[in-house]
Amino acid sequence: MAFDRLIEKIVEKQNPTVAGLDPKLDYIPSYIKEEAFAKYGKTLEGAAEALLVYNKGLIDALCDVVPAIKPQAAYYEMYGWQGVKTLAETIRYAQSKGMFVITDGKRNDIGSTMEAYATAHLGTTDVEGEKIDAFGSDALTVNGYLGTDGIAPLLDICKKGDKGIFVLVKTSNPSSGELQNLELEGSETVYHRMGKMCEEWGEELPSKYGYSGVGAVVGATYPEQLKELREQLKTTFFLVPGYGAQGGGANDVKYAFDENGIGAIINSSRGIMCAWKKEGCDERDYAQAALREAIRMRDDIKSVVGEMKL
Amino acid sequence: MAFDRLIEKIVEKQNPTVAGLDPKLDYIPSYIKEEAFAKYGKTLEGAAEALLVYNKGLIDALCDVVPAIKPQAAYYEMYGWQGVKTLAETIRYAQSKGMFVITDGKRNDIGSTMEAYATAHLGTTDVEGEKIDAFGSDALTVNGYLGTDGIAPLLDICKKGDKGIFVLVKTSNPSSGELQNLELEGSETVYHRMGKMCEEWGEELPSKYGYSGVGAVVGATYPEQLKELREQLKTTFFLVPGYGAQGGGANDVKYAFDENGIGAIINSSRGIMCAWKKEGCDERDYAQAALREAIRMRDDIKSVVGEMKL
Repeated sequence: MAFDRLIEKIVEKQNPTVAGLDPKLDYIPSYIKEEAFAKYGKTLEGAAEALLVYNKGLIDALCDVVPAIKPQAAYYEMYGWQGVKTLAETIRYAQSKGMFVITDGKRNDIGSTMEAYATAHLGTTDVEGEKIDAFGSDALTVNGYLGTDGIAPLLDICKKGDKGIFVLVKTSNPSSGELQNLELEGSETVYHRMGKMCEEWGEELPSKYGYSGVGAVVGATYPEQLKELREQLKTTFFLVPGYGAQGGGANDVKYAFDENGIGAIINSSRGIMCAWKKEGCDERDYAQAALREAIRMRDDIKSVVGEMKL
Repeated sequence: MAFDRLIEKIVEKQNPTVAGLDPKLDYIPSYIKEEAFAKYGKTLEGAAEALLVYNKGLIDALCDVVPAIKPQAAYYEMYGWQGVKTLAETIRYAQSKGMFVITDGKRNDIGSTMEAYATAHLGTTDVEGEKIDAFGSDALTVNGYLGTDGIAPLLDICKKGDKGIFVLVKTSNPSSGELQNLELEGSETVYHRMGKMCEEWGEELPSKYGYSGVGAVVGATYPEQLKELREQLKTTFFLVPGYGAQGGGANDVKYAFDENGIGAIINSSRGIMCAWKKEGCDERDYAQAALREAIRMRDDIKSVVGEMKL
């Protein structure tokens, strides 16, 4: 199943991290933007071209060290359908370099519509008998507010295509507790309940290494909840945002891992993408700066997690 | 504010309904598909072209009678970036015909990312000083699981651009209660709490007719909750899915309206789009069949709601 593939890549590279590709024009070196605008003008096409060149540079630099990328759909939609084309091309390019791709879309809807999202991002679209991957990602983040029938169509498509999902459980943002931490009758919280639903949904997608194809998003910015959820959700693989720019460190994320050093993948987006700005290096060195930060992050996390073993 | 514009259109047309444009290839008459595939082959481009021609036909037929359309993003994403291009073109075409457009995307994320979604769907993207509407819709459906800082960036952009949002409160699907109906300590449910948050967020987007720019999605399939929520959420405009194909009727949706016959807009998607199949009419008559169904639906709802007055 899908997270077996991801776990194997993590162990092979001894690196449980994912590079978030959330490209804003502000992050992109000016030489890339100038070339793109010279070709397409200051248009959405121009912006989308700059994003693609920037992303490919990052992927080329990172692919031997980092097992996965997580493009965030919002940053592509911001540049229109042209940006969404760059999303599709980024996914394909990263996969061609051997990377696992998690599309961060937080999609959610009723069953019939969720089937369309599942087809779009993880499945195969049928155009009068022709089978075409619209986006063809390896995993998708989703929001479980609608309950089981908003998740079931994803499970079917994951099963057929060896794909996975990550359900939002406890998000990394400051106000995540407003709804997620509300206490239900019987002394559990909304996020606990969502976590349990992940375990149940996951029963349909069993896997080799003990983690089902239904993962959970749990923020690094709430280490206590991360620890508590790791103990409760034995078969749920975690996608952990919030390391770096959002404030989480290695000591916060260590709780996400099991005794074999697996069970989670830690995301950094701005930390990696904007490393060249933070370093103050030549902008043409942006991808190597991203790699330096990715290696620093890997070593930082490995120092608390130890060796990853299957 | 945005829902003032929508309410004025509803009153002018004496029609509190919205046509959901969730186009699957299966729904599209074969003469449209054949032309598109002759031009582009059985490709995502071909599918996207068929969707666009189909949508334009529906919009031309409906625009004098129906005040708004609600394209569902999933059905466009299913046909790749090419489908997403059709989404953008559909939004623009409907607006050029005077219709209000609600993009049904159920987007949600942390603050910085939500700003990107808000910019994409409701705002204006800055490409090095050039201001471009990426999708330029009038309203967007969103999911509030992440709390206030996932909503705040939308409020800013709605304020500047005279736009609105609809937050999922009680959805129309069979399993919506699994999470939404959970009882919190103090005898309210998760969906009640979400409804109250809509009222609070709405304070930032006041309007002429008493309904803020923060609406709520409440399903027609749960008429009791609809009634109860209408009584509790005095300033929250409702988007009500679930009429028609999902099982809701006029007697179920009447509770969504206030004593002036306003306060809500009722969606039908498959009922309108597939009217030609249900009628068994000539497929070239698909748009007029949609109009006949839209008129039947309008009259059905008006028969229980009465005249809409400002």
